[in-house]
Amino acid sequence: MKLLDLYAKMKGDLNQIEQELERSVASDRTLLGETSLHLLKAGGKRIRPVFVLLAGKFGDYRLDVLKRIAVTLELIHSSSLVHDDVIDDAQTRRGQPTVKSKWDNRIAMYTGDYIFAKALTIVTELGNPQIHQILSKAMVQMCIGEMEQIRDFFNTEQSVRNYLLRIRRKTALLIAISCQLGAIAAGAQRDVCNRLYRYGYNVGMAFQIRDDLLDLLGTEKQIGKPPGSDIRQGNITLPVILALREPSLRDALYREIGIIRDHDGNADTRTAINLIRSSHGIHEAEQLAENYIGKALHALQGLPDLPAKKNLTDIAHFINTRNY
Amino acid sequence: MKLLDLYAKMKGDLNQIEQELERSVASDRTLLGETSLHLLKAGGKRIRPVFVLLAGKFGDYRLDVLKRIAVTLELIHSSSLVHDDVIDDAQTRRGQPTVKSKWDNRIAMYTGDYIFAKALTIVTELGNPQIHQILSKAMVQMCIGEMEQIRDFFNTEQSVRNYLLRIRRKTALLIAISCQLGAIAAGAQRDVCNRLYRYGYNVGMAFQIRDDLLDLLGTEKQIGKPPGSDIRQGNITLPVILALREPSLRDALYREIGIIRDHDGNADTRTAINLIRSSHGIHEAEQLAENYIGKALHALQGLPDLPAKKNLTDIAHFINTRNY
Repeated sequence: MKLLDLYAKMKGDLNQIEQELERSVASDRTLLGETSLHLLKAGGKRIRPVFVLLAGKFGDYRLDVLKRIAVTLELIHSSSLVHDDVIDDAQTRRGQPTVKSKWDNRIAMYTGDYIFAKALTIVTELGNPQIHQILSKAMVQMCIGEMEQIRDFFNTEQSVRNYLLRIRRKTALLIAISCQLGAIAAGAQRDVCNRLYRYGYNVGMAFQIRDDLLDLLGTEKQIGKPPGSDIRQGNITLPVILALREPSLRDALYREIGIIRDHDGNADTRTAINLIRSSHGIHEAEQLAENYIGKALHALQGLPDLPAKKNLTDIAHFINTRNY
Repeated sequence: MKLLDLYAKMKGDLNQIEQELERSVASDRTLLGETSLHLLKAGGKRIRPVFVLLAGKFGDYRLDVLKRIAVTLELIHSSSLVHDDVIDDAQTRRGQPTVKSKWDNRIAMYTGDYIFAKALTIVTELGNPQIHQILSKAMVQMCIGEMEQIRDFFNTEQSVRNYLLRIRRKTALLIAISCQLGAIAAGAQRDVCNRLYRYGYNVGMAFQIRDDLLDLLGTEKQIGKPPGSDIRQGNITLPVILALREPSLRDALYREIGIIRDHDGNADTRTAINLIRSSHGIHEAEQLAENYIGKALHALQGLPDLPAKKNLTDIAHFINTRNY
């Protein structure tokens, strides 16, 4: 099944989640309600809700319960995006002006705080302490990950391990717990919850590596923003770390990254991008993403043969080849 | 009993909370742990932990449980301070450089997010859904309050009601739930929890009104920052709203506030402050604070005659006369 067919099949339930997302912030007739709605209406792939719903199929699928988990995770994701936009000084996201550019940084900061608090009010209604514990621990790790990204800006000496730890915290954990919490909320067996966590974690790692590759290989049309955004803001991703290991490229790439750093985000990144594209780093990063996909598929193997298992398999394959 | 005597009497338990506060963030050997520790070590009155502990005396006083509530609330308070410092562009707090001035705004933003997430991990270990619900709802209101403060900067047309709603969200609710959650965590009866909530709410309102008065009446030595900070950043507090109602002062005060606004925080506020000091607004604001103290004391009346009741009474009287 194609990914679009899967979204079409899940449309009814995803629509309900969409309505709940808007309702969650629109109820307060405040500026924060308005800024939050602006952010949510700009859309997004809603991949975390999709994982929650599919994981829920492995237990007692109750949309009223799963909906809360899905909305909570999507709100937490949105809240981290609006804070990231402040850090990255981003003017647009998903083709829409960001909250920080349409309003200002102060408003964006409180919008993030507010959306996060709203997320908590929704999940607390479920009254399940285990879910709160998993969520709050993941939030701490996410904050550390965001911070490590700032710390490592323009650090050309960082290791692959360093990069992997960072994207684990920044991206993979939230996807892992989307799968896990969907299963827990549906009362699935512990082994099923654990397998879905491992699936989500590995898919999340592959997703971020692919995302970082796309920023180097994609066209502006494909990725919705100019390519090279990462390196422009100093975010040294896996292909760059790998390219820096190649003796024939190393010195030139160092120099280019130095120039980009000194131009405070306004430098021409074309030379740097061409150097990275010509390196083995691209292929090696693709391989690593593929390894993670392999592990994700392996985690699925012990699960009962439901249609949702097939859907999760399809999503893993899709992530491995995504170009938008 | 003097307030210092009360702190002395509670020293053992407060020390444990202090250790737990430091431990909560020091465990992660990351930059975020460091920035958070810097913030926490700058100290503070720890008034929220004091309320939690005293409220806990009305039930089964278990320090291991109450400690978590106290640490959670103090962390949430600290997390809101570090975000406020970004908004207010504050260089010092409690005589120490702020996180945003020692590091930068980006780091301060993630430090706030991180401390908040840490607070959640601590309270979730109690596994009490009612506590999570009360907390998360209060967080949403706090964010709205912070935002309303930005929205109302330099708004000389705002009403007293507007001001009261704002400080309710910004300050009073967190103090109210400090008392309420201390009692709930100790398993106190529902009526006791409700009375303590009302006590905390009214004390919190009086506390903020007094705080706003101090900013106009205190010396730099008393309040640890130059007086007039509020009006300099556009925060129109109760005495100002009331002074603007006086026909003999109105035009001159409008003009001064306009000048302060146009000078982007660098104007001389002495004329404005003298106008406000000469108004009836000071006395009326003091009266209103006193009314709230009266309501707080009234809420205590139905509580059993424990030493903690006397302590809470003393704190209310102290807040009504505080000058630091």
